[in-house]
Amino acid sequence: MSKYWSELAKRLEPYVPGEQPKDKKYIKLNTNENPYPPSPKVLEAIRKASNDDLRLYPDPDCDLLREAASDYYGLKKEQIFAGNGSDELLAFAFAAFFDNGNPVFFPDITYTFYEVYCNFFNITPKLIPLDENFNVPVDEFLKPNGGIVLANPNAPTGKYLDLSAIRKILEHNTERAVIIDEAYIDFGGESAISLINMYPNLMIMHTLSKSRSLAGLRVGFALGSEEMIEGIKRVKNSFNSYTVDRIAMAAASEAMKDREYFDKTRNMVIQTREKTTEKLIKMGFNVLPSKANFIFVSHPVYQGAQLYRELRNKGILVRYFNKPRIDNFLRITIGTDEDMNALINALDNIIN
Amino acid sequence: MSKYWSELAKRLEPYVPGEQPKDKKYIKLNTNENPYPPSPKVLEAIRKASNDDLRLYPDPDCDLLREAASDYYGLKKEQIFAGNGSDELLAFAFAAFFDNGNPVFFPDITYTFYEVYCNFFNITPKLIPLDENFNVPVDEFLKPNGGIVLANPNAPTGKYLDLSAIRKILEHNTERAVIIDEAYIDFGGESAISLINMYPNLMIMHTLSKSRSLAGLRVGFALGSEEMIEGIKRVKNSFNSYTVDRIAMAAASEAMKDREYFDKTRNMVIQTREKTTEKLIKMGFNVLPSKANFIFVSHPVYQGAQLYRELRNKGILVRYFNKPRIDNFLRITIGTDEDMNALINALDNIIN
Repeated sequence: MSKYWSELAKRLEPYVPGEQPKDKKYIKLNTNENPYPPSPKVLEAIRKASNDDLRLYPDPDCDLLREAASDYYGLKKEQIFAGNGSDELLAFAFAAFFDNGNPVFFPDITYTFYEVYCNFFNITPKLIPLDENFNVPVDEFLKPNGGIVLANPNAPTGKYLDLSAIRKILEHNTERAVIIDEAYIDFGGESAISLINMYPNLMIMHTLSKSRSLAGLRVGFALGSEEMIEGIKRVKNSFNSYTVDRIAMAAASEAMKDREYFDKTRNMVIQTREKTTEKLIKMGFNVLPSKANFIFVSHPVYQGAQLYRELRNKGILVRYFNKPRIDNFLRITIGTDEDMNALINALDNIIN
Repeated sequence: MSKYWSELAKRLEPYVPGEQPKDKKYIKLNTNENPYPPSPKVLEAIRKASNDDLRLYPDPDCDLLREAASDYYGLKKEQIFAGNGSDELLAFAFAAFFDNGNPVFFPDITYTFYEVYCNFFNITPKLIPLDENFNVPVDEFLKPNGGIVLANPNAPTGKYLDLSAIRKILEHNTERAVIIDEAYIDFGGESAISLINMYPNLMIMHTLSKSRSLAGLRVGFALGSEEMIEGIKRVKNSFNSYTVDRIAMAAASEAMKDREYFDKTRNMVIQTREKTTEKLIKMGFNVLPSKANFIFVSHPVYQGAQLYRELRNKGILVRYFNKPRIDNFLRITIGTDEDMNALINALDNIIN
C-alpha cells in the first residue's frame, strides 16, 4: 500500500491471469488458448495493414469490423460493439448497467473477473451457488435482482445451459440487464444471439481469443439491442476513445469472414475434447461434460494440487484454482491431439 | 437514456474526439496526428509479428516493450508501465490516485478528457483558470489539493511550462499524485523524467501516437516510481489483464529503438511549425508560442467558427472548440510543408 493510492486502489483485489512462465517451453494447457494458429488470411491482412496509415487514429466506431461482424451474426451494425477483448467489454458493461446496492447475480463458481469488476465499480454482487453437480440453479435467477451475468458455457466447469433455460431467465428478468458471456460458445453450444431482437435488456459477449485463435490480438464483441450498445458506448467514450487499433481491426474483420477455417479448427478442438474426455474417464477421472475448449477434471484418489504440480514438473501446464468446492479439480485446455496424448501419458505415469 | 443504464451511465458526459469524416479526402489538421509515416522498421516488425503466436495471449507485463522503453528513457523497467494509448493510462491513473471530495487541480483550459475521467470515477475536479495569456498560474497549484494533472505542453494552447516550474509544483505537493501528461513533449520541451527519482508521487504520461507516428496502434507509457506504477497496475488488473496486443508490443518496441528516424521526423515537424507560425503572424494572425505539434491561432477580425467552416469547405480540417475563452481560436495540427502551404493559401484566400 502506498499513501499516494486512492481509496479505490487500496481496496482493489486484482484478477490474476493464468501463469505465462518464461523459464522453459511448456505444453500450455492453462489459459484456454486455441492450439491452432489464426487463419492464414488473418495473418495476411495484418501484413497488408502494416502501412503508412498507422500514423492516423483508427476509426473510433470500428465501422468495417462491425460490418464484417454484422454479416456473420445476422445483426444490424448498431447492435454490435467492438472492444479490446471481451474483458474490456465486460468491464464497460458492469459500469454501464449495474449499480451499488442492487445486487447483481452470478454463480459462485464462474469467471472470477466478475467479482473483480464489482469491486472496481463498487457494485454489489450476489453469488448464487451452483448445485452439487455444478449446474446453474435456474430458479434462483428468477428472483428480484439488479442484473444477471452468466458465462455460457460456464468457466471453469465447461457446463452449458441450453437456450430454453436462458430464455426462461430472460422472461423473468425484464427490468435490468442480463449479460451472457459466450466466450466459449463456438465449441458446441447454441448462442443466445437469436434472442437479441426479443429481449432489449440482453447483452452477449463474444471474443476472438478462443475459437478464432486470436488471444494475442485482443478483440471482442458486445452484442445486443441498440440501447444496450449505446450504454456501452457512453462508458467507452468516457474512458478511451480508441480501444481497437488499425491492425486489430483489419485482422479481426478477416477472421469474421473466413468461416471455413473457423469451422475446421473449432471442429478439431471439439473432436479432441471428446476423445480426451473418453480416455480420462476410462482412466478413472471424473470429467464434467464440457461444451468449451477445456475440461474440468478431478480424480477420486489424487489431489488436484498434486496433479497440477506433477504435471508442471513434466512440462505440462494446466490451471488449478485453490478455491472452495473446486480445489480438487484441474481445468485443462484442449490442445492438439499430440498435446493431449502427452497429457494422458503424463497423468497415466503419475497415477499408476 | 435507457432504463437499463446504471446511474453512472446516465450521468456520464463522454469525450468527443476530433471528427474523422468519410465523405471525402481532407487535409487532416484536426487530431494532432504526425504527417510522417511510422519508421519503416516498425512496419517491418509488424509484418514479422504476424505469425502463429497470435493464438497465444500477449505478455501481460509487456516485458520486452518495457525493456526497450527502459533503454530509451534511462529508467528501470519497474518504473515503466505500458498501456493501450495514454488515454487508457490516464483513466487508470485517475482511478488509482484520486478520490471523491478531495479536489484534483487542473487548468480550466486543457485536455477535456480530464473532466470526463473525474465524472466517470466520481472524482471532484477543481478547474484553475489559466491567466489571460493562457499561462498556467503556477502559484495556484501550490495550494492544498487532492492531486494535480498538467498537460505539458498544454493542449489546445501548445504552451509549455519549463522544468523549474514543474519542480516548484512538486516541491510544494508531496502528499498526493502529480501527473504530467507529456503527450507533446517531444516537439521541443524538456521532459520531467529526470525528476522521477526525486519525487515518488510524480507520474508522467507518454504516447507513441504523436512523435512516433503511431496513432493507429494505441500504445502509451506511464512513467514514475515503483509505488506509482504498482498503483496503476492494480487498476489495470482489475479491468483487463491484457491491454497491449502482441503486434502493438513488437511495433512499439521497434519504435523506441529507432531514434534516428524519431529525431529526423520530429525535427521536421518542429521546423514546419516555426515556419508556419512566422507566416501566420505576418498575415495578421495571433499565434500562441507552441512547443507541440499544433498551433493555437486566432484572427483579430475573422471569427474562429467562420474560419473553421470556410477551411472545411476548402477541404482542410482543423479543430474548433466552442467553449468559453477559446471560442475564437483554431487548433491547427502541423502537417507537411505542403499541407501547411495549402492551409496558408486557403486562409489567405478567406481573409483577403
